[in-house]
Amino acid sequence: MKKLINAPEDVLVESLKGVAAAHPELSVDLETHVITRAVPKDEGKVAIVSGGGSGHEPLHGGFVGHGMLDAAVAGEVFTSPTPDRVQAATQAVDRGAGVLHIVKNYTGDVLNFEMAAELASMEGIEVGTVVVADDVAVQDSLYTAGRRGVGLTVLLEKLVGAAAEEGRDLASVVDLAHRITANGRSMGMALTSGTVPAAGKPTFDLPDDQMEIGIGIHGEPGRHREPLAPAHDIARQLVDPILADLDVTGPAIVMLNGMGGSPLIELYLMYGEVSAMLEAAGVQIVRNLVGNYITSLDMAGCSLTVLKADDELLRLWDAPVSTPGLRWGM
Amino acid sequence: MKKLINAPEDVLVESLKGVAAAHPELSVDLETHVITRAVPKDEGKVAIVSGGGSGHEPLHGGFVGHGMLDAAVAGEVFTSPTPDRVQAATQAVDRGAGVLHIVKNYTGDVLNFEMAAELASMEGIEVGTVVVADDVAVQDSLYTAGRRGVGLTVLLEKLVGAAAEEGRDLASVVDLAHRITANGRSMGMALTSGTVPAAGKPTFDLPDDQMEIGIGIHGEPGRHREPLAPAHDIARQLVDPILADLDVTGPAIVMLNGMGGSPLIELYLMYGEVSAMLEAAGVQIVRNLVGNYITSLDMAGCSLTVLKADDELLRLWDAPVSTPGLRWGM
Repeated sequence: MKKLINAPEDVLVESLKGVAAAHPELSVDLETHVITRAVPKDEGKVAIVSGGGSGHEPLHGGFVGHGMLDAAVAGEVFTSPTPDRVQAATQAVDRGAGVLHIVKNYTGDVLNFEMAAELASMEGIEVGTVVVADDVAVQDSLYTAGRRGVGLTVLLEKLVGAAAEEGRDLASVVDLAHRITANGRSMGMALTSGTVPAAGKPTFDLPDDQMEIGIGIHGEPGRHREPLAPAHDIARQLVDPILADLDVTGPAIVMLNGMGGSPLIELYLMYGEVSAMLEAAGVQIVRNLVGNYITSLDMAGCSLTVLKADDELLRLWDAPVSTPGLRWGM
Repeated sequence: MKKLINAPEDVLVESLKGVAAAHPELSVDLETHVITRAVPKDEGKVAIVSGGGSGHEPLHGGFVGHGMLDAAVAGEVFTSPTPDRVQAATQAVDRGAGVLHIVKNYTGDVLNFEMAAELASMEGIEVGTVVVADDVAVQDSLYTAGRRGVGLTVLLEKLVGAAAEEGRDLASVVDLAHRITANGRSMGMALTSGTVPAAGKPTFDLPDDQMEIGIGIHGEPGRHREPLAPAHDIARQLVDPILADLDVTGPAIVMLNGMGGSPLIELYLMYGEVSAMLEAAGVQIVRNLVGNYITSLDMAGCSLTVLKADDELLRLWDAPVSTPGLRWGM
């Protein structure tokens, strides 16, 4: 295992120390692994909390800040954070207008956020929840009943974050979140496996001449393996399953995401491929992201996310955002 | 070789196609491989041109935009762009106030930019040049007389870009550039070699239990190899040679840069280590960058850059910038 780490069991806390050192605009609790804004949003606005296992950076901690999340709860690598920590984060950021929980659809996350929501509501905090399940690769998976939550989470955190900043109430923010989950889909692939520090070896063996199509973000199995193929063929295998599942002629926000170990020169090349295919299929790409936004440790590979857009979503997308991972307009 | 590419010889152009598709605010010439702003800066302002071999993305093309570069000239992977293309870029972005060439200190780049500057001056364009040679690892190298130009290039492009945007004249921008190169140093290391697409195999062999300290950004040899070590020891080997070379008690801008294949969770962990060591040595880190800014294809590893700061540099640092790779204040 070749990694820039000390003891494997210290990776999360030591990485959070770096986040704290680099970003004085964030408040990082090294005990609970909760990242919040150093300056909370105004009283009376809906707060947004997300979280999950670590290893997907910049998601979620890198998306805390104005226009996006109020708190991120970081579990150990690929391990859901406990309900008490999610509850503590919820309580810490509630500004009297309720809290939206953004949960990626993995069994542990769903259960723990559910329990946290119950605990919070016992404290008188109104909690709404959106479960992201955008991965068209598989119906059920190793860690999931139903589809896995992947890249759409990034776009959703941006969009509902902007809505909350506008002062919209919890019901309206929850409605928006559900509209986004209904209109976005993702599909990913891997060239190599990531390596969980505590495991010390790659999560799965992928021969030098093979790739895996439909991979999740934890090394859980995808649809199938096949011989390495040119970028053009890979792009086709990401685009087609999304278009088969989502009627998306018209405007869209598109993300070509890197899994952590693939360099930008390759991600742009892939974006060139997928954007041409999407446009040829009648998708009008009005906004895009290309880069590492939801990763799987040092896995090489990429994923594609497509979200149908309308004027409201574009207005929210263009609203100012200031986080370590996403920043514009301020 | 596991990469998201089609034919190796098409990587550069196909990646540029992706850049063009993703960034309508840039103008990408697929013939000359020159990236410029779609909307040029105002007449009468100094223009900034950089470039060099590809494979270091987002540098340089990802730093074209308001507050940073006016043009980037992309050579093939790890290959200097030809003088005629640098000259064409220079001519294209000159707004009547002269052009600054930012050149990383590699023999090919230095010669080609020199020749381009001569060609441009024959056309009546005033050209100033700054050669970045910030790498403390080695005195001469495989491709260099003198030190190599690495991470400081990123900070320099931001700072002189801001100065040019303010309307300062060429002599003043050149002076500033030289002040920056005199006050910044870098040191890098690799866990793995990157793979040049046309070569099809790693540039160098680094055994599973070894790392290389003092690596450049092209896989050229560093100072020495040694057994894999904890992040803390690696950080010490990046920090000490910089502090030995640069008297930097007081304010500084610090970048912990990823080489392309190392995920953000590791880069933040490394930033935690180096920032604590620098602060202990009397460096006051007033601004920082953590992420992939000047890479070496899919190499795993990182580099550290330290630049002594003063009020003027901080003002220029904080000035608005809007590029694919760096964006704030707008």
